[in-house]
Amino acid sequence: RAVSRKESGAARRMAAAPRAIAKEVMLSKAPERLCREGDTGMREKFEKTIRKAQDEICAAITAVDGKSFHEDTWTRPGGGGGISRVLSDGKVWEKAGVNVSVVYGSMPPEAYRAATGVDKKGSTDPNDRVPFFAAGISSVMHPRNPHAPTMHFNYRYFETDAWNGVPSQWWFGGGTDITPSYVDEEDMKHFHGMYKGVCDKHDPEYYAKFKKWCDEYFVIKHRGETRGLGGIFFDDLNDKDPDTIFEFSKECMNTVVPSYVPIVERHVNDDFNEEQKEWQQIRRGRYVEFNLVYDRGTTFGLKTGGRIESILMSLPMTARWEYDHEPEEGTEEAKLLQYTRNAATWV
Amino acid sequence: RAVSRKESGAARRMAAAPRAIAKEVMLSKAPERLCREGDTGMREKFEKTIRKAQDEICAAITAVDGKSFHEDTWTRPGGGGGISRVLSDGKVWEKAGVNVSVVYGSMPPEAYRAATGVDKKGSTDPNDRVPFFAAGISSVMHPRNPHAPTMHFNYRYFETDAWNGVPSQWWFGGGTDITPSYVDEEDMKHFHGMYKGVCDKHDPEYYAKFKKWCDEYFVIKHRGETRGLGGIFFDDLNDKDPDTIFEFSKECMNTVVPSYVPIVERHVNDDFNEEQKEWQQIRRGRYVEFNLVYDRGTTFGLKTGGRIESILMSLPMTARWEYDHEPEEGTEEAKLLQYTRNAATWV
Repeated sequence: RAVSRKESGAARRMAAAPRAIAKEVMLSKAPERLCREGDTGMREKFEKTIRKAQDEICAAITAVDGKSFHEDTWTRPGGGGGISRVLSDGKVWEKAGVNVSVVYGSMPPEAYRAATGVDKKGSTDPNDRVPFFAAGISSVMHPRNPHAPTMHFNYRYFETDAWNGVPSQWWFGGGTDITPSYVDEEDMKHFHGMYKGVCDKHDPEYYAKFKKWCDEYFVIKHRGETRGLGGIFFDDLNDKDPDTIFEFSKECMNTVVPSYVPIVERHVNDDFNEEQKEWQQIRRGRYVEFNLVYDRGTTFGLKTGGRIESILMSLPMTARWEYDHEPEEGTEEAKLLQYTRNAATWV
Repeated sequence: RAVSRKESGAARRMAAAPRAIAKEVMLSKAPERLCREGDTGMREKFEKTIRKAQDEICAAITAVDGKSFHEDTWTRPGGGGGISRVLSDGKVWEKAGVNVSVVYGSMPPEAYRAATGVDKKGSTDPNDRVPFFAAGISSVMHPRNPHAPTMHFNYRYFETDAWNGVPSQWWFGGGTDITPSYVDEEDMKHFHGMYKGVCDKHDPEYYAKFKKWCDEYFVIKHRGETRGLGGIFFDDLNDKDPDTIFEFSKECMNTVVPSYVPIVERHVNDDFNEEQKEWQQIRRGRYVEFNLVYDRGTTFGLKTGGRIESILMSLPMTARWEYDHEPEEGTEEAKLLQYTRNAATWV
C-alpha cells in the first residue's frame, strides 16, 4: 500500500471533541422504560406520555402514507436512551421522524446556557459540569408535495440538580410550528386555530405569548426571515404547578395530528410543476440553515454528544441552494417570503 | 384581506440582529479599486493580486466548462466592496463561485475571537468594537460527476487597528483543500504534491505544519470525520516580513488551477450510477454541516452582516440527508469514510 496512515488522527479528534455522554448501546427492541428504576413522579409520567404520543402520531402518519416507520432504540449505561422512528421515501412524506429520548448527563455551563438561555452566574470554570435529566419528544415531517407543509413539534421536560449554589430546577418547553412553501390562509387558520384553542383552555395569555415567542425564535437572522409561518413555542415554563403544565403539554401533543394531518390530506394530490418543487427545495435549504446555525435543540445535542442520527433527523432528505434566488414580485413564492419577513396574525 | 399583519416584525428582527456593516450598493460594473483611495502598500497590493487571481481562475474554469461566470459587484459607503462570480448549472460544474472582497468594518470582540481564534484580554464590554480591514479571495467548486472532487480555497490579508491597549495587528491566512466523494490516490498525490512544492520553496516546515492544520481545522466534530481529504491551511501568519508571506500566498493562489483542474479533467467523463450520485449528495450534506456549524469564515460573515449570498455561495446546489446512512464494509464509499476518520499522508 503506497499511502501511509496517521492512526492518531481519530484519537486526536476525539480528544478535541466536547466531552460526550457515555456512548449508546443499540437494542433490538424498545425497553419497558427508559427512565432509571428509581425515577418516579414527573420523570416517569412524562416518559409514558411522550411514548404514547409517539405511538399515536406515528400510527396516524402511517395511516395516511401507507408506509411504516423504521425504529431504532438505544440505551446508555446508567439509564436513559431513546427511540427514533423514521419514515423515509414514503408515498406522502419524503422524510418523517419522531424521536423520544430520556437523557441523564452533565453539561458544560456553556451548553446549559445554550439550552436554557439563562446565564447562571457564579461559575466561570470551564471544567464545571451541570447534572441534568431531560425527556422529550421531537419530530419533523417533510412531505413530497410542495403544497403540503413541513411540520415540527417538540415537547420536553427538564430538570437540573442543585449546582454551584443554584437550587435544583425544573421546567417544561415545547411547541408546534408549520413551514409551508406556499401560503394557504385556510390552512394557517386551521393550524393556528387549533393551538389557540388548546392555549385558551389553559391560560388566556398563552396563545398570544407563545405565538409571538415562536415568531421570534424561528428567525434565520442572517436572512431576516422566519423559518416558517409559526405556531407556538415556549420554554422555561414553571410558573404554575408541574401537573398543570404537564396537562397543557399533553394536550399540545394530542393536537399535533388534528392540526396538521388534515392540511396534508387536503394537498396530497395537488398538481405541481418543476419550478414549485425547486422552490420547496430552496425553502428546505433555509430549514437546514436555521437548524444548523440557530436551533437550540440541535446546538445543544451536538455539544452534549447526543445521538447524531437522531438529532439530524430533522434535516430534509434533500435541499437546494441557488445563488441569489429572489422570486419575482407578485408571485406565490414572493408572497410566502413576505410572510416570513412580517409575521401575520392568523386567528 | 382577511389576515392582518404585524408590520413591526421585520423591524424587531433587524434590531435583534448583530450590528451590520453599512448595507451594500450594487454596481453595474466592477470598479477600478475596492480599497479606499488612501490605502496603499499591502492593502492595495493584495487587492490587485486577488483580483488577478479571480480573473485567471475563472478563465481557466470557463475554458473547461464552456459556461461563463455571472458577476455581481457591490460597494459599501466609505470604501470596500466585493465581486462575486458564480457559474451555476455548468456542463462540468454544478456550482462554482469565486469571491473577492475588501471590507472595512468594526466587529464585536466576540466576532474578533471567532475570526482570529485569539482572545484579546482587556475588554468584556459587549458594546466594544474592533476596527478592521480584510481583503480576501474565496472559492468553492462543486462538479457534477461524483468522481470529480469539490475544491475550496481562500486567501486573505487582515489588519486590525490599535484597540483597547492592543497595538495594530496584521496577518495572512488561507489554504486550498480538496473534497472527493471517492478516493483516487493518484489525484491526492498530485494535489498534495503541488502544494508541498509551493510550501517547500518557502519554508521546509510549512507543508507538514499546514497540512496538519488543514486536517485539524476541517473536522465535523459531531461526526468524527473530516470534511474532505485535506490540503493546506494556515492562519495568523505574521512571523516573517509581510512581503515574504505575500509572495507565498500569491504562489498558493497560482497553484489552484494546476493542482485541481487536471483532476477534474481526468474524471469529467467517468461513468457513474445513481448510487454514486446519491453518495456524492450525502457527502455534500456533510459539506453543508461543516460550513454552517464550524467554518470560521462563514460564522464570521454571518455575525458581521456580510453579504449573505456571497458567504453562502460555498454551499452546494443540492445536498442530501439520509437517516443513519452507513456504507457497507469493503466498498469505495466505506474507503472514503475511513480516510475522513484517519488522515493519510499523501506525499
